[in-house]
Amino acid sequence: MLREAVHHAAHGSYAYPVGLDTLRITLRAARGDLQRAAVLYWDRYIHAPKYTVEMSIAAEDELFAYYQADVRLETKRFAYVFVLDDGRECLFYTEKGFFPDLRPDVQFQYPYIAAADLWEPPKWAQGAVIYQIFPERFANGDPANDPPGTEAWELPPTRTSFKGGDLKGIIQRFQHLVDLGVDVLYLTPIFASPSNHKYDTADYYQIDPHFGDAETVRELVALCHRHGIRIIFDAVFNHCGSEFFAFQDVLRKGAKSPYARWFNIEGFPVQTDPPNYETFAHQVATMPKLMTQHPEVKQYLFDVAVYWVREFGIDGWRLDVANEIDHQFWREFRQAVKAVNPEALIVGEVWHEASDWLRGDQFDSVMNYPLQQACYDFFAKGTIRARSFASRLAKVQVNHTHAVNLAMFNVLGSHDTERFLTSCGGEVRRLALAAAFQLTYEGSPMIYYGDEVGMVGLTDPDCRRGMVWDEEKQNRELLSWYKQLIALRRIHPVLRTGRTRTVWADSISNVYGFARFQEGEQVVVLLNNSSQEQLVNLGDIPWPLGTPKQVRDLLTGAKLKVGETALPPYGVRILT
Amino acid sequence: MLREAVHHAAHGSYAYPVGLDTLRITLRAARGDLQRAAVLYWDRYIHAPKYTVEMSIAAEDELFAYYQADVRLETKRFAYVFVLDDGRECLFYTEKGFFPDLRPDVQFQYPYIAAADLWEPPKWAQGAVIYQIFPERFANGDPANDPPGTEAWELPPTRTSFKGGDLKGIIQRFQHLVDLGVDVLYLTPIFASPSNHKYDTADYYQIDPHFGDAETVRELVALCHRHGIRIIFDAVFNHCGSEFFAFQDVLRKGAKSPYARWFNIEGFPVQTDPPNYETFAHQVATMPKLMTQHPEVKQYLFDVAVYWVREFGIDGWRLDVANEIDHQFWREFRQAVKAVNPEALIVGEVWHEASDWLRGDQFDSVMNYPLQQACYDFFAKGTIRARSFASRLAKVQVNHTHAVNLAMFNVLGSHDTERFLTSCGGEVRRLALAAAFQLTYEGSPMIYYGDEVGMVGLTDPDCRRGMVWDEEKQNRELLSWYKQLIALRRIHPVLRTGRTRTVWADSISNVYGFARFQEGEQVVVLLNNSSQEQLVNLGDIPWPLGTPKQVRDLLTGAKLKVGETALPPYGVRILT
Repeated sequence: MLREAVHHAAHGSYAYPVGLDTLRITLRAARGDLQRAAVLYWDRYIHAPKYTVEMSIAAEDELFAYYQADVRLETKRFAYVFVLDDGRECLFYTEKGFFPDLRPDVQFQYPYIAAADLWEPPKWAQGAVIYQIFPERFANGDPANDPPGTEAWELPPTRTSFKGGDLKGIIQRFQHLVDLGVDVLYLTPIFASPSNHKYDTADYYQIDPHFGDAETVRELVALCHRHGIRIIFDAVFNHCGSEFFAFQDVLRKGAKSPYARWFNIEGFPVQTDPPNYETFAHQVATMPKLMTQHPEVKQYLFDVAVYWVREFGIDGWRLDVANEIDHQFWREFRQAVKAVNPEALIVGEVWHEASDWLRGDQFDSVMNYPLQQACYDFFAKGTIRARSFASRLAKVQVNHTHAVNLAMFNVLGSHDTERFLTSCGGEVRRLALAAAFQLTYEGSPMIYYGDEVGMVGLTDPDCRRGMVWDEEKQNRELLSWYKQLIALRRIHPVLRTGRTRTVWADSISNVYGFARFQEGEQVVVLLNNSSQEQLVNLGDIPWPLGTPKQVRDLLTGAKLKVGETALPPYGVRILT
Repeated sequence: MLREAVHHAAHGSYAYPVGLDTLRITLRAARGDLQRAAVLYWDRYIHAPKYTVEMSIAAEDELFAYYQADVRLETKRFAYVFVLDDGRECLFYTEKGFFPDLRPDVQFQYPYIAAADLWEPPKWAQGAVIYQIFPERFANGDPANDPPGTEAWELPPTRTSFKGGDLKGIIQRFQHLVDLGVDVLYLTPIFASPSNHKYDTADYYQIDPHFGDAETVRELVALCHRHGIRIIFDAVFNHCGSEFFAFQDVLRKGAKSPYARWFNIEGFPVQTDPPNYETFAHQVATMPKLMTQHPEVKQYLFDVAVYWVREFGIDGWRLDVANEIDHQFWREFRQAVKAVNPEALIVGEVWHEASDWLRGDQFDSVMNYPLQQACYDFFAKGTIRARSFASRLAKVQVNHTHAVNLAMFNVLGSHDTERFLTSCGGEVRRLALAAAFQLTYEGSPMIYYGDEVGMVGLTDPDCRRGMVWDEEKQNRELLSWYKQLIALRRIHPVLRTGRTRTVWADSISNVYGFARFQEGEQVVVLLNNSSQEQLVNLGDIPWPLGTPKQVRDLLTGAKLKVGETALPPYGVRILT
């Protein structure tokens, strides 16, 4: 047995409660190394093992297999060890290492399932379809509020362009969101700011006058809610804009300003070129970094966060540059926001492995860029093949609880990346295949405005072009595809909340397949990421709830025998 | 290279700030597998590696070596990968796995060292010597407050015995603590309760009348502080006693009691035999479990915690059954207590791997029973030998930051275990050796009252005998040994706050040795856990700051050449 590969810890994604008396336990071992793995468990106040549960493989990456089992104990106090059998030896794996025989005081312990530790992201957010709008570029509903120098909608945007997009535009074009079938609208910042992106906030309490005003926000929120759509805003708390009143006060009064310690300033007077104060990224003078450990700064920003939730009924916050603010800030932020609305969603911008923020005390979800990168490599660029893709997905999945995975903002692109269709070299069938994956896989798929009609664009500023509304210029077939997939997701709850297992990952044919399943319901999705027809024998798929006698293709309605079935080039089968 | 053994995560004990611009990074690999390991790092907003730092082995257990390096970056935003060389291949190890060549977007990221994430336990607690008193058994200072039926001090205690020990007794015998040289006094519970152990609190605001009153507490706290000794109390918040007013109210009024939801009651009326409500452990009717997720329960207990810190100036809390209360309770508890005294110490009772509570949001420290079990196996029972002992120590060490390791309550025994001397079969030389380890190793050594004079006793209730004050019956030699070791610890700050590395672990001779080191200062401790004389060549020791030309034995004052030196049976050398 490859002992060095074996891992478990009695916390995080390796041991978490899924009910008041049920614990989900994961064990990692070398891929292909074990024949069987089981959990032996008992109540911590009794001193002998009592129950055994066999574990099954929930995920595999290139090096490891992840075994999982749910264990139940009415008394909620778990002591457990693993029994691992590789055919040559059978070992106990414990908190104190490996033993051929069981000894006292070596067990793992999950001491007690406390009700308050049974956290999960808001139910409504688990598996929801998100639509991201960059408001300056979605629709110009009110030309009267256009900023000076507003350019033609169709011209390629520069970093400083204004196009006149506004909240009225979103309201006027709202039927597009309804027709698409999205569940959540996420707006990049809309507070007063001199830029087109508004990540340099001048006033956290004012809607940017070129976007609208408090009344337009109320109208938009009401419109969303009337259609059962939630709406979340963008909290830019890592830094403010240089026009923010507190920074202006420091510019004027220097060290005497009561706000001098809201920023990290090297010396007075404050200089802006180059800045002698800490900023977002490197010396971005217009974005002074806020000292979020300062109690007044904390209180100011918590008040902002609470204000928009309480007074305007928004449903949550996406947190900009969330990973450069201290953890304690986010813990208190969560308490403040959830006190006003326990169902508010908190989504951090973290581009890398984010489990440290997803332990129940900080965020509900993050923007899932590791998954985006896997999709980029597999669907857009073809630099990895099916088995690597499966490994990359597994690596993201095993870092989080199931409920967190359901709430992850699965992005193909955003205002900060090249558009996915551009990454695909303009090959729509590749984007269509990726969209099929995104809209059936576990998580909350986020659609960046315009991707659904085939918009292209290199990275910022080109990915922020004006939305294409001219139906002649829209890819209507692609739009129908998005609608069909979203509709399937609505009809089949298993696609929103089911568990997920890779069931096919063949690097030769480049077919990748996964199953979604929950009580009595299973769907298998097969994706042919190749330019040739590929055959898959449906009987060879390890259907999580057992091989069905006959399956139905949810895209065509056709009934299929559980035998060999053809996948056209870049084709998709969604089978139940 | 054994890839399955390699591990890193950009959080927890694997990546943590040790300064505003310095990150301590740990990498795990298979023991003996690598020839070299290095960190390649750069600022996250620059897209190319810039600096390289070689890593060195900080700890080893039976399977793994733990490489460590401190990396500095003025801009505080770290991107990094590892370069691992096993002599046959040289690989990049990244967040996305192994690569022969470096690729974009695969790096680990520690996004930013935020000032508020630079947490550590209170400085005063790092490396402090703790003295634990079970007040009913330390000294009877005021026979007038003895409970009815108080038994003779010398009789073996039963589970229900009263001996008359009280706070006045501690005050009268205080010189013992001063002479011993301890830094912190930890009292098991002293609030009103019907039992001798007082873990069934009747009133969190009253000192048990058999122990004294608020004035006696003030006197004791003042006495401690006058001698530079801190004092911490025992917070029993997992459950109350059945005499607690809220539970009594529920007994009387049933479902109509405003406190009915403070407990988890199956049905009304409440029954106590057997209990139809949730309790500590199994059906301990006198200890109803408190529902710590209930806002009123939280507020009540936070008020208690704050009251004794603010009104009586106690220096912290040890938390009973801390692992059966939800994490959110402890997060808010920490905020409440630290708001009153940021220097207050919070120590949880967790017998197993406790890293989930030691991330900066909950506890400063825990009672270090995994270390106690290693000492029990090595020093008392001899069931493991030097190398296994080193592995067990390494496993505890690598789970925490250095500052947390310094604050761990390193126990040999407590009111909940057999006395260590009894575990040693009465062999004082074994206890003396273990004490030498405990009092020079990294952490906060906790001495259970009476261990220092050679008290014996099986587990509860026998380990709670009346303190032996008759000098004829005390082991005065052992007491001198404890005093000498504690004095050494006071004279040599490196023994309190230095870093720690195993430098000798020979299972044949059974000699174990470790070094403590910090700027310009290093001490090596060698422990011969065998009944034969053993030779160690001091020149063969990997002195962390370089091999000295000559060393001094801190116990004898003798100067030694850096050559072969003899360790008598169960002998100790403390060398600098």
